[in-house]
Amino acid sequence: MPDDTQSNRMIHIRSLSANDQSRIREIVTAAGNFSDQEIATAMELVDEALQKGEESGYIIVVAETPEHAGEIDGYACYGPTPLTEGVYDLYWIAVDPKAQGRGIGRILVEYVEKDTRSRGGRLLLIETSSRDEYQPTIGFYQRTNYELAARIKNFYGIGDDKLIFSKELA
Amino acid sequence: MPDDTQSNRMIHIRSLSANDQSRIREIVTAAGNFSDQEIATAMELVDEALQKGEESGYIIVVAETPEHAGEIDGYACYGPTPLTEGVYDLYWIAVDPKAQGRGIGRILVEYVEKDTRSRGGRLLLIETSSRDEYQPTIGFYQRTNYELAARIKNFYGIGDDKLIFSKELA
Repeated sequence: MPDDTQSNRMIHIRSLSANDQSRIREIVTAAGNFSDQEIATAMELVDEALQKGEESGYIIVVAETPEHAGEIDGYACYGPTPLTEGVYDLYWIAVDPKAQGRGIGRILVEYVEKDTRSRGGRLLLIETSSRDEYQPTIGFYQRTNYELAARIKNFYGIGDDKLIFSKELA
Repeated sequence: MPDDTQSNRMIHIRSLSANDQSRIREIVTAAGNFSDQEIATAMELVDEALQKGEESGYIIVVAETPEHAGEIDGYACYGPTPLTEGVYDLYWIAVDPKAQGRGIGRILVEYVEKDTRSRGGRLLLIETSSRDEYQPTIGFYQRTNYELAARIKNFYGIGDDKLIFSKELA
């Protein structure tokens, strides 16, 4: 059995609960590529999802490792893109750098794709920055078969483009 | 004096007030290219702007014609794009079809550009649909020197792409 599958079996994806908030803040901070403002925005979405559930427009799942006493090592935040039919945005995904290399990011993305499909989603979009510190993230999206659908030059700042990756969910 | 300038002098751009709400609803409904959901979204932004002012993230201005007893014939809604430096979105712009051809759309766009520049904005983005009923809108953006910066295929629906127009504000 390949290593990948073995590590998959040690990761459990479940819905967000109120106890996860501080650990998610640790993860997005440790990830190292998010600005303070981005971290604040990520945490606002967690707040909204906890307060309003899916009515917030945000679905949040966490990846926990049962054999590590249920430690959470990653999370994803996604939801239907307003004013579209069947388009979903993957707003945030982050894995603790200490837990990287165990396939947690890939397991989260696969979960999000499967869940989006089961909700009638046909297209998943991910926006990211072209800055150097996002190169590993961009490589990850490419390895998980996302295509660069669009680039908005100088969006986040001069020389810092917005990249929009997309995947058709067949 | 060219007609354009003359008609410009008859249009006055001012900030949103609570009395404008029903007229804005009439305009976006009369415009004919917005779905019920889009109209509801446009009106939510008007609500938010009235309740919270610019803290809402939305700046709304209306075009009134003093010689027609201050009748409002168009409006624009714009604001800073979250998580960017100096990028603004023109979220909505609409002119009553009965008042089209008098340059109101252009006057609104020029006002938005000037105001955005004075707020330190360097890039203005406009998202629209590729559907046939938006062709006049697309033509209008092209005539006012917006460039097609990106296209997200099948975004709003199958065969209905999202177009992102942009203009650098020098």
